[in-house]
Amino acid sequence: MRTGSLAAVRAIRDHGPVPLVALADLPGDTLIVPLSGIGAPTVSHEMPHGEHEPKRIAEEVERLFGRPPGAVMSSEIGGSNGVAPVAWAAQLGLPLLDADAMGRAFPEVQMVSMYVAGLPADLVVMADVVGNVVTIRPVDGLWSERLARAACVASGSSALMADYVLTAARARGVVIEGTVTRALSIGRATQDTADPLGALRDTLGAVRLITGKLVDVDRRTTGGFVRGSATIEGTGADRGRRLVVELQNENLVAVEDGRVRAMVPDLIAVVDTQTATAIQTEALRYGQRVAVLAWPCDPLWRTPRGLEVAGPRAFGYDLEYQPI
Amino acid sequence: MRTGSLAAVRAIRDHGPVPLVALADLPGDTLIVPLSGIGAPTVSHEMPHGEHEPKRIAEEVERLFGRPPGAVMSSEIGGSNGVAPVAWAAQLGLPLLDADAMGRAFPEVQMVSMYVAGLPADLVVMADVVGNVVTIRPVDGLWSERLARAACVASGSSALMADYVLTAARARGVVIEGTVTRALSIGRATQDTADPLGALRDTLGAVRLITGKLVDVDRRTTGGFVRGSATIEGTGADRGRRLVVELQNENLVAVEDGRVRAMVPDLIAVVDTQTATAIQTEALRYGQRVAVLAWPCDPLWRTPRGLEVAGPRAFGYDLEYQPI
Repeated sequence: MRTGSLAAVRAIRDHGPVPLVALADLPGDTLIVPLSGIGAPTVSHEMPHGEHEPKRIAEEVERLFGRPPGAVMSSEIGGSNGVAPVAWAAQLGLPLLDADAMGRAFPEVQMVSMYVAGLPADLVVMADVVGNVVTIRPVDGLWSERLARAACVASGSSALMADYVLTAARARGVVIEGTVTRALSIGRATQDTADPLGALRDTLGAVRLITGKLVDVDRRTTGGFVRGSATIEGTGADRGRRLVVELQNENLVAVEDGRVRAMVPDLIAVVDTQTATAIQTEALRYGQRVAVLAWPCDPLWRTPRGLEVAGPRAFGYDLEYQPI
Repeated sequence: MRTGSLAAVRAIRDHGPVPLVALADLPGDTLIVPLSGIGAPTVSHEMPHGEHEPKRIAEEVERLFGRPPGAVMSSEIGGSNGVAPVAWAAQLGLPLLDADAMGRAFPEVQMVSMYVAGLPADLVVMADVVGNVVTIRPVDGLWSERLARAACVASGSSALMADYVLTAARARGVVIEGTVTRALSIGRATQDTADPLGALRDTLGAVRLITGKLVDVDRRTTGGFVRGSATIEGTGADRGRRLVVELQNENLVAVEDGRVRAMVPDLIAVVDTQTATAIQTEALRYGQRVAVLAWPCDPLWRTPRGLEVAGPRAFGYDLEYQPI
């Protein structure tokens, strides 16, 4: 089990189960705290967050808004940030909202649906493992990323973060609803089947880009991110083919023979061929037998504003976005 | 005139004169905001602070404490941070406290009298020229420096900062009183005299380490600081001698023939031989005719706790402190 799942299991054991609530069920003035870990996953797995980070963030939110938060939301449903919010909600005694701000995972602070929807990026609250709390009132989303990243790197490249704090009324139409339910259904579909990979593809509506063996991983933990690339050599029917996946915490672009086969903001996942479990970028290892899947992102990211915030050019790729 | 003085003159013209108040004259619950620029002076001279930085800090203080600040204090009476608070006080319509937190200048956030006196370093509020506001609740003074420096570097190595916010009652015994008055008396003593350098030495009770010419300046703006060294070759009676001053925003150690002649926390100043005006580290230039003076620091810095916070070892010098 991974750190996010371990934290969730333990927190439920210690604090009881976490109710999953729909946005429509929350009173309009409920304060929603979208939480995520910020930093390099390589670090947060070695130095996991404890109970005090969500508590310090909740205290600071109460100090700033005059009332405590009423619900936790995952900022990104992908990776450990999709599961760990269960732990944070349990520790705070709050329900978890059935929504997130990406419908996937993205590496930067401003790459959230609230920012795409035009809500001013005006508040970030961070807590690190040491006990420091940093509150940022940025002038815009790019400055929220720049300042939060600097604070995160100073804290050892890992911190817990509330990126925006918003009322349930404000959240309507600006968060991506139903993504926790969808994650659960993906988990269930792949659990009790003889063909997990096929079940995963069907549930996601995904294209299989290649099946093969991981033959090269170039990965650096730098500037608060994991960056690099992974090369997969085809096996079986794919023998002789070679796919390179470029990454920055997440998989961004999949290239074969100089041709881009899938690109951000569409989703690219490297999954274990036997279990269909996604392998996070920091867990990629030489020799792993994997399939690379790609599938469409939430429509939000395909809008001009969505592509401006998290399209290929936002990551420095001089590519015109081509939907998968 | 330098940027701090220019800002002060302009702010007084626009907003009227700034009353200088003694700590004893302030009601005990008055909120004092100790302000200073943080970053590399090389940057802040090219990108000076405007009116909005002190206003944003005052707004954040009011938000956090439920009432507005009642007085501005200079965090460090040395360099432009000794003069610019006149501008910030004028812009905020507040009196200036006749005190500071160093009795000199120091480069790091935790090197303030409040920290030496044992007040927990629990709040830093920063505003940059872009308009971003960052609030830090650090676990201790070293983390306040680390996180404030990171935010400052992200903002382009310059920001305005409230380092601690404290009531007048709390400030008693933990700030260095009378230092604005002392700075004024130094200015007056050197202004109307045929021998400014002699007058300066007498007023400060300073030792002259060398008189000569600046023959080498090694200076880098890095990690949010100006670092390097300046070499002065003796002239006249000092011909044949050579003094090296090592610096990190401020002058830290003066060495002659491998022997340390003066060291932090005592004060070392490079001054123009004609006008006796101090030359800040970022304004040192080849060929300048200078005298190097050294004089005792406030007794606070000679206590064991004072030396721990800002003695030679705090700057990485393996030296036992020897008072000048």
